[in-house]
Amino acid sequence: MKKIIIINGPNLNLLGKREPEIYGSQTFQDIFNQLQIDNPTIELSYYQSNIEGELINKIHEIGFNFDGIVLNAGAYTHTSIAIADAIKSISTPVIEVHISNTFAREPFRHHSYISPVAKGIIVGFGFKSYQLALDSLK
Amino acid sequence: MKKIIIINGPNLNLLGKREPEIYGSQTFQDIFNQLQIDNPTIELSYYQSNIEGELINKIHEIGFNFDGIVLNAGAYTHTSIAIADAIKSISTPVIEVHISNTFAREPFRHHSYISPVAKGIIVGFGFKSYQLALDSLK
Amino acid sequence: MKKIIIINGPNLNLLGKREPEIYGSQTFQDIFNQLQIDNPTIELSYYQSNIEGELINKIHEIGFNFDGIVLNAGAYTHTSIAIADAIKSISTPVIEVHISNTFAREPFRHHSYISPVAKGIIVGFGFKSYQLALDSLK
Amino acid sequence: MKKIIIINGPNLNLLGKREPEIYGSQTFQDIFNQLQIDNPTIELSYYQSNIEGELINKIHEIGFNFDGIVLNAGAYTHTSIAIADAIKSISTPVIEVHISNTFAREPFRHHSYISPVAKGIIVGFGFKSYQLALDSLK
Amino acid sequence: MKKIIIINGPNLNLLGKREPEIYGSQTFQDIFNQLQIDNPTIELSYYQSNIEGELINKIHEIGFNFDGIVLNAGAYTHTSIAIADAIKSISTPVIEVHISNTFAREPFRHHSYISPVAKGIIVGFGFKSYQLALDSLK
Amino acid sequence: MKKIIIINGPNLNLLGKREPEIYGSQTFQDIFNQLQIDNPTIELSYYQSNIEGELINKIHEIGFNFDGIVLNAGAYTHTSIAIADAIKSISTPVIEVHISNTFAREPFRHHSYISPVAKGIIVGFGFKSYQLALDSLK
Amino acid sequence: MKKIIIINGPNLNLLGKREPEIYGSQTFQDIFNQLQIDNPTIELSYYQSNIEGELINKIHEIGFNFDGIVLNAGAYTHTSIAIADAIKSISTPVIEVHISNTFAREPFRHHSYISPVAKGIIVGFGFKSYQLALDSLK
Amino acid sequence: MKKIIIINGPNLNLLGKREPEIYGSQTFQDIFNQLQIDNPTIELSYYQSNIEGELINKIHEIGFNFDGIVLNAGAYTHTSIAIADAIKSISTPVIEVHISNTFAREPFRHHSYISPVAKGIIVGFGFKSYQLALDSLK
Amino acid sequence: MKKIIIINGPNLNLLGKREPEIYGSQTFQDIFNQLQIDNPTIELSYYQSNIEGELINKIHEIGFNFDGIVLNAGAYTHTSIAIADAIKSISTPVIEVHISNTFAREPFRHHSYISPVAKGIIVGFGFKSYQLALDSLK
Amino acid sequence: MKKIIIINGPNLNLLGKREPEIYGSQTFQDIFNQLQIDNPTIELSYYQSNIEGELINKIHEIGFNFDGIVLNAGAYTHTSIAIADAIKSISTPVIEVHISNTFAREPFRHHSYISPVAKGIIVGFGFKSYQLALDSLK
Amino acid sequence: MKKIIIINGPNLNLLGKREPEIYGSQTFQDIFNQLQIDNPTIELSYYQSNIEGELINKIHEIGFNFDGIVLNAGAYTHTSIAIADAIKSISTPVIEVHISNTFAREPFRHHSYISPVAKGIIVGFGFKSYQLALDSLK
Amino acid sequence: MKKIIIINGPNLNLLGKREPEIYGSQTFQDIFNQLQIDNPTIELSYYQSNIEGELINKIHEIGFNFDGIVLNAGAYTHTSIAIADAIKSISTPVIEVHISNTFAREPFRHHSYISPVAKGIIVGFGFKSYQLALDSLK
Repeated sequence: MKKIIIINGPNLNLLGKREPEIYGSQTFQDIFNQLQIDNPTIELSYYQSNIEGELINKIHEIGFNFDGIVLNAGAYTHTSIAIADAIKSISTPVIEVHISNTFAREPFRHHSYISPVAKGIIVGFGFKSYQLALDSLK
Repeated sequence: MKKIIIINGPNLNLLGKREPEIYGSQTFQDIFNQLQIDNPTIELSYYQSNIEGELINKIHEIGFNFDGIVLNAGAYTHTSIAIADAIKSISTPVIEVHISNTFAREPFRHHSYISPVAKGIIVGFGFKSYQLALDSLK
Repeated sequence: MKKIIIINGPNLNLLGKREPEIYGSQTFQDIFNQLQIDNPTIELSYYQSNIEGELINKIHEIGFNFDGIVLNAGAYTHTSIAIADAIKSISTPVIEVHISNTFAREPFRHHSYISPVAKGIIVGFGFKSYQLALDSLK
Repeated sequence: MKKIIIINGPNLNLLGKREPEIYGSQTFQDIFNQLQIDNPTIELSYYQSNIEGELINKIHEIGFNFDGIVLNAGAYTHTSIAIADAIKSISTPVIEVHISNTFAREPFRHHSYISPVAKGIIVGFGFKSYQLALDSLK
Repeated sequence: MKKIIIINGPNLNLLGKREPEIYGSQTFQDIFNQLQIDNPTIELSYYQSNIEGELINKIHEIGFNFDGIVLNAGAYTHTSIAIADAIKSISTPVIEVHISNTFAREPFRHHSYISPVAKGIIVGFGFKSYQLALDSLK
Repeated sequence: MKKIIIINGPNLNLLGKREPEIYGSQTFQDIFNQLQIDNPTIELSYYQSNIEGELINKIHEIGFNFDGIVLNAGAYTHTSIAIADAIKSISTPVIEVHISNTFAREPFRHHSYISPVAKGIIVGFGFKSYQLALDSLK
Repeated sequence: MKKIIIINGPNLNLLGKREPEIYGSQTFQDIFNQLQIDNPTIELSYYQSNIEGELINKIHEIGFNFDGIVLNAGAYTHTSIAIADAIKSISTPVIEVHISNTFAREPFRHHSYISPVAKGIIVGFGFKSYQLALDSLK
Repeated sequence: MKKIIIINGPNLNLLGKREPEIYGSQTFQDIFNQLQIDNPTIELSYYQSNIEGELINKIHEIGFNFDGIVLNAGAYTHTSIAIADAIKSISTPVIEVHISNTFAREPFRHHSYISPVAKGIIVGFGFKSYQLALDSLK
Repeated sequence: MKKIIIINGPNLNLLGKREPEIYGSQTFQDIFNQLQIDNPTIELSYYQSNIEGELINKIHEIGFNFDGIVLNAGAYTHTSIAIADAIKSISTPVIEVHISNTFAREPFRHHSYISPVAKGIIVGFGFKSYQLALDSLK
Repeated sequence: MKKIIIINGPNLNLLGKREPEIYGSQTFQDIFNQLQIDNPTIELSYYQSNIEGELINKIHEIGFNFDGIVLNAGAYTHTSIAIADAIKSISTPVIEVHISNTFAREPFRHHSYISPVAKGIIVGFGFKSYQLALDSLK
Repeated sequence: MKKIIIINGPNLNLLGKREPEIYGSQTFQDIFNQLQIDNPTIELSYYQSNIEGELINKIHEIGFNFDGIVLNAGAYTHTSIAIADAIKSISTPVIEVHISNTFAREPFRHHSYISPVAKGIIVGFGFKSYQLALDSLK
Repeated sequence: MKKIIIINGPNLNLLGKREPEIYGSQTFQDIFNQLQIDNPTIELSYYQSNIEGELINKIHEIGFNFDGIVLNAGAYTHTSIAIADAIKSISTPVIEVHISNTFAREPFRHHSYISPVAKGIIVGFGFKSYQLALDSLK
């Protein structure tokens, strides 16, 4: 079985509470439970932190022995060279995902430091973005 | 059965010949045949043109009676406001796809006029990008 | 009788269908019929294409024997140096028109390659923009 | 009868004297007299000032009881957020006009703070720009 | 008793009439009356002009014998180096206030020539901004 | 009694030690004690961290059951989209404060990601900025 | 005798009071008296206003019958296209002067709308700049 | 004999008619006839289109079996990433030519998407540019 | 004996594993052991964290009682105003070091928020950069 | 007697030959002879070089024992930080002069590295600029 | 016989030694000897200097009595307004040449101060660029 | 013994005289004498010129037979692509040094053309920068 982790960055722990007109009212725990059911052939784990450096720690920790990382770095997507460097430092492929269409929002969300070092990018499909990322790693 | 069309823009007719170190040596016809086999529940059609306005004509033509458009607008992605306007004018959802990771190439490929009006964006998975787009429309 | 042509660029064939909250629900054929009735002293013709180069072909074709061109180049307004060059190459005066107020929309619609080479510019009066352009050529 | 005012901004009192190779040698009083003759169904008045704030005062004064303002704000077009705010504050529609083709002149004349808040924009028809603006308000 | 003046710039005389969805429907005279009642220990006066230079004249006039100026320069905030120079020229401290959150509006309202020379800046509290400015000067 | 928290970001724990020519020599604990005395009707608490993500955690924690947050995000003001997103995610109003006049310092301190999502902004009044923020929440 | 006018723009009426470390402590009236004494062969007059439009009015008024204008437009130098247009509209030559070295101050003082339309520019000689301008017109 | 094609882009079919002060009054057919005479050892053919995508089609068509392409892409030089991609996709070397000195004209003509992928660039020699390009391919 | 600390920022814990073609295959622990041997007269300590705020905490902690800090802030060099502020807040001198030549890499690595507040900067000497920094503090 | 030197930079040795429509047909030797006659109380010398470093050498050589330098650095005005540094290094005051109005020419001539370190700047008076510079040093 | 000079700028004396992967291993003396043999009807001379001002001196010296200058200004192409001014000052036509394709190298090599004043530009043909330039002058 | 040369660029011959508050009052000859004493195992030589091209000549001359160049290019650091090209052309490694912290000075001193081609960069240690550079070459 493939070992894949979903890593969510800042504020994604508030999904379901935060700006529901953009992100919907489901919590990510609901989503994750459903993803586990829908992907029985994947050993799926989950990590979330609001701290940039803890995301880097986690990427280092599993970056040489997992089969894939599905990363929604939230706002750090647009500001963190350090996370992008972490991705370049590891051997596990990273799929960048976003729930909303970041290109249809504020200009500062149009640039991603992560995209150039990601294996692929999936943007704007709502929670389905995570499933598509898992599909891409199968 | 869902009716979905794949529309490819300029130079994608040269796939297999063009810069194989970036795009691989398969032709798109090979890809398309495989996609039809892999997606028996979709009525899948294909269109390619190097002419911006013909792409717009095609988008208009099927934009009110198909269930989805998978669009790789090639270089017009970065220069065509007219195609973006066409997408906004229709009711069929459009998924933007790219074979290579455009964000890892020249800076002028980092901006897309199409992204803000697309339903979702899939970038960098090679030919698998097309399959993921079809998945997203199922 | 003066010979004047109205040339519409990309997506304007979808008028009545496209984003009606911005452009209204009338088709351009309706507008054109009314303009012919309202301007009995003008020999008025009409051309539309979604293809940049065909618009250039038409401008060349009638650019030395008509009395005026009313041009709504749509999205090509903002990207086409080639159409602007065509306008500079001919002797027939060109009036640039826009239905919506392009300056109140996205920043990339604020710049026009056509304006510096147009005889005059009329923006934002809805379909009335065309009548005002005809008035200016009388 | 409709009540419409023409408001001219800085240096337009010098029309006829100022750079005649761009603006012609007629004074604006000549133009205004002719416009009154040519538009007998409009109660037409005129105001000119070189002082930005006096233009704002006038816009406030007639901004709730006139049927239209034809505004050539001259150089303040490019620098005055305050006039644009005044236009947004009133209920009378404002038509922005320019005598010369501002887009064919210095780059700093290509941007207008007024355009986004104007009902329509007419540029480059010489003094005829004023008549076209009156036409648009009929 | 401290002598403090509130100076309002362009279009603020239209408060109550202008864009009520942003500024509310109270006139500034109502506000000022209430501020006098609420601050009995301050000798409070008021000045408004739409003319940049008259604002400068007023700043000069009271700039060496008042205890504070509460300045809402309106749109001149973003365009007037001359008002900023006037503030630097005087000894009375100036508090910059804005009713709406200028940073949540158009980009051209995000820059203030006045802020670097103001003693303090208060933005976005509605009419309460004025009271907070008075508090700061107590 | 209203529940309000003051949250200070990076380096503000060094107040009294750090660049005293800009920030003065009082520690923030001194300030906070005085603020508690001066605002007996507010249940006032305090939090400081140098870690961006911990500030986000705290904003999440109290963001749905406090009456106000007075936030001095220090240098993160200029670089953290993540904190701004946290503020947008919660229902408690946030007042942005700065001790020094950030607009009179280096250009990179002139832009704040927090301002557009704050309820109000208070800049440059020294430690008094905190009291004014509390006033605004009363 | 040559007729020359010195026109000073905003805040120059405060000379002697304003930022004496930059401008010195003499009033402009002192300077002007001395200039009259030192230039007995010139019929020298003086005008100052803080109002942009009044400066334009004065330029119009004497712009066709004086032999020279020595203009220190103060802060309007950097923001007023309208004054530059006034200078282009008249036949009297205009010499731009500045007391301080504007190029050694804030970046927004490095650009002048007036310089391209001035006959000559004299910057940074203190009050001596005015005498040099008079010399240039002799 | 070497097989070489000259490909001309938009508006070059108007040579002889268009802006003769820049391009001269000869038609391109005259030029081409002369080039055939002057280069008897080359099998020289010619293609012109105003349609970007047709230029791409032609480049694809002859891009693997000709010995050289002499390309004057006209205005598409400055806007077409798609043509540049076509050039990168083929094996035939492409020489970029321009009749006028594009670097001495409007700034938007100073940048070429084609130059980085061309084998060589020849600019500003009038019609002689074509002969020099042929020389370079001999 | 002088007390000096080496502080390494994000991803430098992966040295030896991360992008060895740029950074070599030695771990930093190896380097540090060698530096202790080579500098027997320095009491040398070491700290590494991937968390921006923890780096700030450490800088605060030793910033008033050490003789020097050798800081390689990694990617935070280019994004962290907060670390730069921490350096300005302390009395211990900070030497900025980089292993690779940051100026020969991506443009976003060419700017450092730390350089203007560092006592000196040493870039591109591989691990030798650390020894040179120690030399500079002797 | 005051010792003053005029230093001319690149291409000014061609005065009289070079672009006479901008610079006139007099050689600089003619000008210099006249300046010596017109300023009998100044010990006036002259130096010209087309080599940036020789201009620096000359500035160093006389920079501590002359009473003034009148410097027309020609094109090096816009590109040479080294000459500006030389001026900062010496004690003799430097007056920057230009014959033509550099602000009315190409944009790259609008910026001067020399202006911020010059004692004064005189632009656009033709050869009279030199005399005015001498006047300023008297 | 036509008199033509080839002038090479900085570092071109190292041809054959410098970056042979870009420039090849031939010295320019070899090239020049061959050019003399291949162009027996031209009186061909050669000059090289690494000093910007010496290049200007040479351009002045032969700029009124030669039939052509073939100029490869090397790196000064991108930084020297002074050389461009020298070219404008003379009557001999100047052909700008580059050995490598400057547009395919670093961005700072994409702009040339010389191009707008050159009679023609030839880029990227290796040493053949010189022969093509001679062809153009025949 | 290693052969190393120190090359200083423009104005560094004035060390001791020039802006002593930034550079100190020692001459470089004093420094060089001390460096020779402190590095007895290095055959150390010295060169200084204010002429960009002479610096290039010297780099060429010793660029294939020395063991190292310590280069302080002064102001040419920020403007000379030609010196950077010279460094790329040679085989001797070049260490870039600066006495003052260029990143704490004017913005135009923050960019170096030399850094990307230098082996290492040492900035801001006063004259000690030279010793550190020698250390790096040992």
